Amino acid sequence: MRTARFTDPTGYTRSGILTDDGIETTGRTYDREDVDLLAPTEPTKIICQAGGYMDHREESGFEDRPERPELFLKTPNCVLGPGDPIELPPGRDSVEFEAEFGIVIGAQCRGVSEEAAMDVVAGYTCVNDVSNRDDQGEERNWVRGKAFDASLPMGPVVATPDEVPEDASLTLRLNGETRQETTREHMIFSVPELVADVSELLTLEPGDVIATGTPYGPDELSDGDTVEVEFEGVGTLENPVIER
Amino acid sequence: MRTARFTDPTGYTRSGILTDDGIETTGRTYDREDVDLLAPTEPTKIICQAGGYMDHREESGFEDRPERPELFLKTPNCVLGPGDPIELPPGRDSVEFEAEFGIVIGAQCRGVSEEAAMDVVAGYTCVNDVSNRDDQGEERNWVRGKAFDASLPMGPVVATPDEVPEDASLTLRLNGETRQETTREHMIFSVPELVADVSELLTLEPGDVIATGTPYGPDELSDGDTVEVEFEGVGTLENPVIER
Repeated sequence: MRTARFTDPTGYTRSGILTDDGIETTGRTYDREDVDLLAPTEPTKIICQAGGYMDHREESGFEDRPERPELFLKTPNCVLGPGDPIELPPGRDSVEFEAEFGIVIGAQCRGVSEEAAMDVVAGYTCVNDVSNRDDQGEERNWVRGKAFDASLPMGPVVATPDEVPEDASLTLRLNGETRQETTREHMIFSVPELVADVSELLTLEPGDVIATGTPYGPDELSDGDTVEVEFEGVGTLENPVIER
Repeated sequence: MRTARFTDPTGYTRSGILTDDGIETTGRTYDREDVDLLAPTEPTKIICQAGGYMDHREESGFEDRPERPELFLKTPNCVLGPGDPIELPPGRDSVEFEAEFGIVIGAQCRGVSEEAAMDVVAGYTCVNDVSNRDDQGEERNWVRGKAFDASLPMGPVVATPDEVPEDASLTLRLNGETRQETTREHMIFSVPELVADVSELLTLEPGDVIATGTPYGPDELSDGDTVEVEFEGVGTLENPVIER
């Protein structure tokens, strides 16, 4: 099942099931062209992993497998819906894409064991962890570098775990050209390991997202670009890039 | 004016004005003893300053005045109300108090100038930036170290700016003994400077909090302690400390 949030033609926010016929709600099926898709959840926080793949750790100067996931945070103001423009923050030279598998939490939880972790996972979504390197390089904690407005395009839907193969692929295309490509099997930590670790000290809420890190090779975005993140079993998240 | 959020005797969440007679709402005045005070706002994010005072920068090994505020983040799961217990995270040896002036945002804003900053400030509250040094010392971004559950006691009220003198004092008492003491005039960056800087790239929402950093001398909390943060013009935030 793939769940979308959207604005209907009257401006009302709804959620429904994406099918070949459109988006089914209890009262009506909407044509996909008649609605404006929103980010599929409203997270209270986004917990991101840095260095979730050995390739990206090596290109960042780390050679060892980490003992536990390295984390940083994004905030609700970061969330951007499918199709909405990534506005480059004014006055910054280096703003980069990072395609990531996103884990969507389905139940309030804390201290979840690896064995029970999939019980609190609602599903998966595509994430683009847009990063402002100008500020990130000067900060101890990445706040201006990672938590700026519109820095977390996510969507287009939440797909339940049964829709997503164990070896699902993740692909990023910039203006149609493939720039990042991996599969879930390349992640250093599994989904249950990540959920268990992140929830040790922090209560997770329904709709919260764990962004699992980028495989390798983030690169710069420019005014006029189109960036797509495709997650096998979920779909494709597409966003234009604009300069204000 | 001092605004409190509270649970009334029926369990309903209300807000009202704290006066000498109790808490006034439109329909009724409640005795303070009959209600359970909650954190005075529901922030979507908490932007914290590290090293907001030269004394604390020097004891942390930094001698220069920073060019701009150093930031890190806390999340909604961190928020703790007045009187509620600070639960020490299990298995950690060093969890410390940090008294701070808290700025409460009153209007959605981004890119606010220093001149206009006070227009988006609803008021002030007491903050205790409880810090888990075991994890903080091992992290690049302070997530396990700063954003764990119950790590942000705040309250007891939001006091409007006219209630708070320019040279307002901040005092932390541990089991009745004064352990931290400063005044607003010792802050490196002023309130307008902080609001303007933080809102440059991030939209702030009503109820969001900027925690302005601790003056000097954070120290360890233990099971059975009582910690009070008093902010002149706001009041006193008191929390017990417990081990689960």
